Amino acid sequence: MPFIHGPSDLKNLDFSQLDALAAEIREVIVETVTRNGGHLASNLGVVELTIAVHRVFDSPDDKIVWDVGHQCYAHKLLTGRAERFATLRQKDGLSGFPKRSESVHDVFGVGHASTSISAALGLLAGERQRGRDARAVAVIGDGALTGGLAYEALSHAGQLELPLIVILNDNRMSIEPNVGSLSRYLSRLSMKSYYQTFRRTIDRTVKKIPRIGDWVFNGIVRLKRAVKAVFYTDNFFVDLGFEYVGPVDGHNIRRLEEVLRDVRAHERPVVVHVITRKGKGDDKAENDPSAFHGVEGVPRSHAKVSANTSPDTSADSPGNVFAGTFTQAFASAITHVARRDSRVAAITAAMEKGAGLSSFKKEFPGRFFDVGIAEEHAVTFAAGLAAAGMRPVVAVYSTFMQRAVDQVIHDVALQNLPVIFAVDRAGFVGGDGETHQGLFDVSLFRAVPNVSILCPATGAELALMLDWALAQNGPVLIRYPKAEAIYEETCPPLETGRGVYRHQGGAATPDGAGDSGGNSPADRRADICIAFSGGLLEEADGAARILQERGVPCALYNLRFLKPVDEAFLGEQLARFNVFVVAEEGYASGSFTEFVQAFAHTHSCPVKIVPLTAPAGFPPQATRAELLESAGLSARQIAATAFAAFGGIDN
Amino acid sequence: MPFIHGPSDLKNLDFSQLDALAAEIREVIVETVTRNGGHLASNLGVVELTIAVHRVFDSPDDKIVWDVGHQCYAHKLLTGRAERFATLRQKDGLSGFPKRSESVHDVFGVGHASTSISAALGLLAGERQRGRDARAVAVIGDGALTGGLAYEALSHAGQLELPLIVILNDNRMSIEPNVGSLSRYLSRLSMKSYYQTFRRTIDRTVKKIPRIGDWVFNGIVRLKRAVKAVFYTDNFFVDLGFEYVGPVDGHNIRRLEEVLRDVRAHERPVVVHVITRKGKGDDKAENDPSAFHGVEGVPRSHAKVSANTSPDTSADSPGNVFAGTFTQAFASAITHVARRDSRVAAITAAMEKGAGLSSFKKEFPGRFFDVGIAEEHAVTFAAGLAAAGMRPVVAVYSTFMQRAVDQVIHDVALQNLPVIFAVDRAGFVGGDGETHQGLFDVSLFRAVPNVSILCPATGAELALMLDWALAQNGPVLIRYPKAEAIYEETCPPLETGRGVYRHQGGAATPDGAGDSGGNSPADRRADICIAFSGGLLEEADGAARILQERGVPCALYNLRFLKPVDEAFLGEQLARFNVFVVAEEGYASGSFTEFVQAFAHTHSCPVKIVPLTAPAGFPPQATRAELLESAGLSARQIAATAFAAFGGIDN
Repeated sequence: MPFIHGPSDLKNLDFSQLDALAAEIREVIVETVTRNGGHLASNLGVVELTIAVHRVFDSPDDKIVWDVGHQCYAHKLLTGRAERFATLRQKDGLSGFPKRSESVHDVFGVGHASTSISAALGLLAGERQRGRDARAVAVIGDGALTGGLAYEALSHAGQLELPLIVILNDNRMSIEPNVGSLSRYLSRLSMKSYYQTFRRTIDRTVKKIPRIGDWVFNGIVRLKRAVKAVFYTDNFFVDLGFEYVGPVDGHNIRRLEEVLRDVRAHERPVVVHVITRKGKGDDKAENDPSAFHGVEGVPRSHAKVSANTSPDTSADSPGNVFAGTFTQAFASAITHVARRDSRVAAITAAMEKGAGLSSFKKEFPGRFFDVGIAEEHAVTFAAGLAAAGMRPVVAVYSTFMQRAVDQVIHDVALQNLPVIFAVDRAGFVGGDGETHQGLFDVSLFRAVPNVSILCPATGAELALMLDWALAQNGPVLIRYPKAEAIYEETCPPLETGRGVYRHQGGAATPDGAGDSGGNSPADRRADICIAFSGGLLEEADGAARILQERGVPCALYNLRFLKPVDEAFLGEQLARFNVFVVAEEGYASGSFTEFVQAFAHTHSCPVKIVPLTAPAGFPPQATRAELLESAGLSARQIAATAFAAFGGIDN
Repeated sequence: MPFIHGPSDLKNLDFSQLDALAAEIREVIVETVTRNGGHLASNLGVVELTIAVHRVFDSPDDKIVWDVGHQCYAHKLLTGRAERFATLRQKDGLSGFPKRSESVHDVFGVGHASTSISAALGLLAGERQRGRDARAVAVIGDGALTGGLAYEALSHAGQLELPLIVILNDNRMSIEPNVGSLSRYLSRLSMKSYYQTFRRTIDRTVKKIPRIGDWVFNGIVRLKRAVKAVFYTDNFFVDLGFEYVGPVDGHNIRRLEEVLRDVRAHERPVVVHVITRKGKGDDKAENDPSAFHGVEGVPRSHAKVSANTSPDTSADSPGNVFAGTFTQAFASAITHVARRDSRVAAITAAMEKGAGLSSFKKEFPGRFFDVGIAEEHAVTFAAGLAAAGMRPVVAVYSTFMQRAVDQVIHDVALQNLPVIFAVDRAGFVGGDGETHQGLFDVSLFRAVPNVSILCPATGAELALMLDWALAQNGPVLIRYPKAEAIYEETCPPLETGRGVYRHQGGAATPDGAGDSGGNSPADRRADICIAFSGGLLEEADGAARILQERGVPCALYNLRFLKPVDEAFLGEQLARFNVFVVAEEGYASGSFTEFVQAFAHTHSCPVKIVPLTAPAGFPPQATRAELLESAGLSARQIAATAFAAFGGIDN
């Protein structure tokens, strides 16, 4: 697309040229996503829609907001970013999501679902306040429309009566095939197009009647209402104060343009219902869009093409160092406990496969609940299940737990209900960038009374923690990263509030030796201890090895519990070392690390705590390894920091 | 009501006895609320509804969930708590909200809006999983229905098709007169009762046709659908998969019972639309239910009857020690800045009066936005306004900010948009109890990059902080308690990241003396410093006086900034004292206090930091003074703790 430098270049093309452009855009997207990873199906579905939107609206004066943003590739290609598109999702490259810092055409950054209507309404209200006549368009999928935020925004927009344009991109699935009544409802709506055609005819006729005074106008309104009452049943959007247009074929640029030009002239809020096909133009993606929602790029470390397709096969295959991801370990563990405990239920918010619940769903369909993109409801619903004596496990990504903080506080923790949170993608997550990092969960939930927070270092430990959680009478959060888990057959039993030594340092000590899980008091063997939260086992272990190789004995301590903390036991551990490194995958404020520092101050412990947490700021896209490196959490850097703190000189 | 020991006692009464009971219940509620404070109008509105619900359903086997819970007084009176009712909202007394620990009839605790449908659905699904045939009823007001969580739950319930019963208690207002399209929509719905009557007749006729095989049944379904298509337009709830019944007169026990008995026999989700009148039976409350939503009891400290009626009159009346609340100071300050800066907009989530925005709304209606009970949307909408160049101020209670954490992170902070959060009711809040404490905001938001957090100690300082916030290019959170503010004409200018000494200790030093706001390095005068976050000025000041009187010179340091922190400056202050008490109104984890402790450890400061934060746990209802006392944050206790840390002996 070298000839498209910005949306204005689109306006000189005829429809056959536009169709050719659409084909070219598809080619670039498929090629780039195959190489770099990213969202394939959602982007292929909106190529024509994006072209039509940019033909009719004048970006950036008109404000176009993409919900979730996983469908913005065509938008990026058409707004001056074709040349840099090969860098998509790579370190220092183009983001896979709209970003205000990247282009004036990205008027509102995004990554999570259901924000577009609120943001577009705010942009529109702001532009009007500032005396400008801009339009605002929110492009939202049927999946994102299941989120309560979208509904709150529709309700407010209907009340404000500003000419907000909501394009409902109805592809009949969010990340997983869509669930919920709304989805069913939209299907019914599309079938009503017969009424629509009739209504449009009436509307056109009505428009031709000259407006002679109020009484004629009122007559028209009454007439329209009567027509509606007989032929066109009110719909959801009309109930909320919107005009409704559609459904429109989302792959017909000419038809889309006609409709959008009509709608642009409206002075009221309007919903344009567009039907698209996810993965359009790519056979594989079109037939299985769920598998091609998020695609891993090929030339990546730990490369696994389309890890989304079956992340939850059993993890019980010993012999490898990495036997699978933490997600797979969770999938195996929850299915296992559900077999022996009929109270166990699983809840997901549109992440059945991603969260590793497909095999659970297959085996226990009656105890599996996919609530749609609705994390708040997922948590309060789980609280209700728990209050009825069930043992619900809410499987959700760390970044999306941010959506349900009050539900955890007000509905779960305050009532001390036994809800388990399986928090996947905790820590640094890679190519999805700023919006998807899982760095907040510990800060958000460590302050919440009654909530326990555990971090497994291996798949076996994850299973053990799930068992422990099921034996508690209050909420438990188990967090683990988007990463391969080191394989170990078993692990020492859990002791509430205590970590466990992987080894005590000193070359002669076998790993994990000693009774009661290696926690027995031992003679002081090492001056340095590296304590780590589970997901950092590989890095912490590597750092300890580096130090050992340099002749500095270094103990390795798996924290396990970020909360509660057995303070007496912690104090004993701190007393054993000169330097106590704490490596944790989250922000400093509210972390376990900060807690230990405060603890050491309060108890005047003569130890130097070396805090290693995520630096302030929102880490941009990069591989997990790159992100750990830039956060100072790679094995090499943990070792260097520990060595320097110990009094050595490094680098 | 000595003769009603539980809901079963209701079942033997005839309708005239029930009407008499309703009158008696109203009397008790009015009398108790007048004395103890509490929610008057909402409770008076549902007396008949509560009686009918308890006649038809078998609590606690059937699960009755009250949304928000501010309408549960009749429920409490009918479920064995009449004798303790006089203790309502008092320390160790009955809670003003349903509480699982209080009664088996309170099946799900609550305080925030919009949770009931999710919780009831979870309870129902759990009961069914466990093989029980219970019913579940969610009683939700039209106000709470504007929250996205309620919509997420309706959508999921429509999909699950369990026989959930949602009673929509439509009183046409939430705390403030209701806003949003839904409210308008509900009014339209009620007018359709003509169609309803007709439909019920058809339904009854249809029911009489014997079911001879599938084809007849299908014929019935088709017939019903045809009737619906012609006479009864689909409504919002039907779109989401519910049956719809109503509207029903919510003050006619006999009619309510008929409908609820019908509905109880249903095997599908159903919405019962009930029309009630808030404040029913009490002239004053009926005519101005907004003023009587939350009523302050008479015999309280700082007693002000119905502080809700006009909390935002100007605070510019010098001469008193207390010139008004922080809310009033905010009301005055935002109106003031809006006059000189046309970019300033104010957003509230159904808390216009409570958040002090009535005068702003009156003066700047075009820049005032009440989005309904929809905190998530409020924040993302504000982010949109900011992206369009406005300077939005979101005025919300601390406890409700918990609802919008991801919106602050993902939509505001990540894009570093200049949204100001005026966080009222931060800290301990009194009679509303556990659910309404404002103890989480610092823990939740201190970890979020780009967000500044400030705490004013006086009204003048609040105004100064609002000015400072408007001069920033990123998000700022200003938090203040539900309390009177000490009056001072002015205060020293703000220096980013720094606190300011109220005095340096030592009787001879005048308050706030010294250049650059009292921050100039001075000779060491005191060994103890009490540092405090704004809302604790009165307590910290009192503690310093007590220490002075005991001959222990004590400096008084107003933290002002919980974030960012000028670390060099902080280090200098720590170096000046032996004991540095930090008093803060929030949980320890993620607090400024914990940060200072970690800082002192890292920098090996030879100072003893004494942390005074809210103890772990959810503090129950009591007055603010009582809560501060039990948290160790009263003047007496701060002084005692400081004295003990200094090496003295106290008590």
